[in-house]
Amino acid sequence: MAEGAELLRTALRAGTPVESVYLAPEGAEDPLTQETCAQAVAAGARLFPLAAGVLERVADTVTPQPVLTVLPMMGDLPPEALRPDAGSLIVVMVDVRDPGNAGTVLRTADAAGVQAVLFSGDSVDPYNPKAVRASAGSLFHIPFGVHEDPLALTATLAGAGYRTLATVVRQGDDYAGLDWMLPTALFLGNESAGLPEDLRAAIGGSLGIPMEGQAESLNVGVACAVVCFEALRQRRTRSPG
Amino acid sequence: MAEGAELLRTALRAGTPVESVYLAPEGAEDPLTQETCAQAVAAGARLFPLAAGVLERVADTVTPQPVLTVLPMMGDLPPEALRPDAGSLIVVMVDVRDPGNAGTVLRTADAAGVQAVLFSGDSVDPYNPKAVRASAGSLFHIPFGVHEDPLALTATLAGAGYRTLATVVRQGDDYAGLDWMLPTALFLGNESAGLPEDLRAAIGGSLGIPMEGQAESLNVGVACAVVCFEALRQRRTRSPG
Repeated sequence: MAEGAELLRTALRAGTPVESVYLAPEGAEDPLTQETCAQAVAAGARLFPLAAGVLERVADTVTPQPVLTVLPMMGDLPPEALRPDAGSLIVVMVDVRDPGNAGTVLRTADAAGVQAVLFSGDSVDPYNPKAVRASAGSLFHIPFGVHEDPLALTATLAGAGYRTLATVVRQGDDYAGLDWMLPTALFLGNESAGLPEDLRAAIGGSLGIPMEGQAESLNVGVACAVVCFEALRQRRTRSPG
Repeated sequence: MAEGAELLRTALRAGTPVESVYLAPEGAEDPLTQETCAQAVAAGARLFPLAAGVLERVADTVTPQPVLTVLPMMGDLPPEALRPDAGSLIVVMVDVRDPGNAGTVLRTADAAGVQAVLFSGDSVDPYNPKAVRASAGSLFHIPFGVHEDPLALTATLAGAGYRTLATVVRQGDDYAGLDWMLPTALFLGNESAGLPEDLRAAIGGSLGIPMEGQAESLNVGVACAVVCFEALRQRRTRSPG
């Protein structure tokens, strides 16, 4: 379920098959929204006009945008399908609970040219409406998958040839001193508890982000951004191999 | 108004004068919360125990934490007091509306050793409860100020010797190619509209964050993190001057 005409346009541009579109009266009055709905219908979607006040009762927000789109479930990327290449980077979220953080990780990973984002352990559903909103359309662009068992996932990715790295606070190797041309699976843990001990023991190495000031840690989306954009910076300034 | 025993502890550690503490019955039953309240009283705070159900009616969240702390207003840092040094970095938010984003900027700037954060234009109140929560205590650590007129602020900072840079999308100089030992004031704009045209014309230069993938832009807190941690990386690897 994606809210708003902008997300519908993003899904259409990405070639995502749109199942159906629910249109509130305020949306039917807007020419751009009308045009977007016509494109969805042309692409095979069913269009359902709604009476006034109906959308407010089913939508997730208090003042919903006047278009709701129903999309097929994606996110079944099998980790066995991932192949490491020079500079490949995979982001693995483990027990990331906040939908805004998960959506920000998707958006940031997309912008940083990450190969795939994997949701593991007790992580939030990628289709949580707040996660969809925070991803700003990147849910339709970046390959992602949901895999409950982070230990099995670690073994699969290591077996495929990815270096596995745990993101930790004020410990681990300096992220900026690592060679990001090596294909890597970067693990991000829960907002409070971090990564589980047994998983950290199974992951090949760990990295930290050296900090100044008095902040005790970084937001998980921010930590993801700092590391992924350092990796992209290295890829941009160095030749592969 | 700061919610939760953890923020109260942060304020006490930072030496912030605490005016009063409101304690719900559930908080009075927790030994660690009791100890924190005793420290606040020893530091001069007035303690008000609350009857059951009272806190739920005044707090910002549906299930509030059992301690509310009233703190003096800070954030009156005058821009004239800021002095540039090698590697100094100031973050200026202009019309940043989302309290979660503003709090994330405070937390990230603190962690990246930023000199000060300035709120300008129609930016959200730094004391918005969601901003306080997202700052994770950094509101008590990093110097900040509120200054309505971003044009006057730009003139003051440029006059004091700071390079002024506008953060823009897919344009501007590559942030990673800039010399961050030069004292800089980094301007971040509104989540949708970016920076106003007249302000961009007044700011000395602009920077962008080169992206891959199909994301159209970055979240403002994420963009702040990418730039501030590149600046910190350069300060860590190069000698000042």
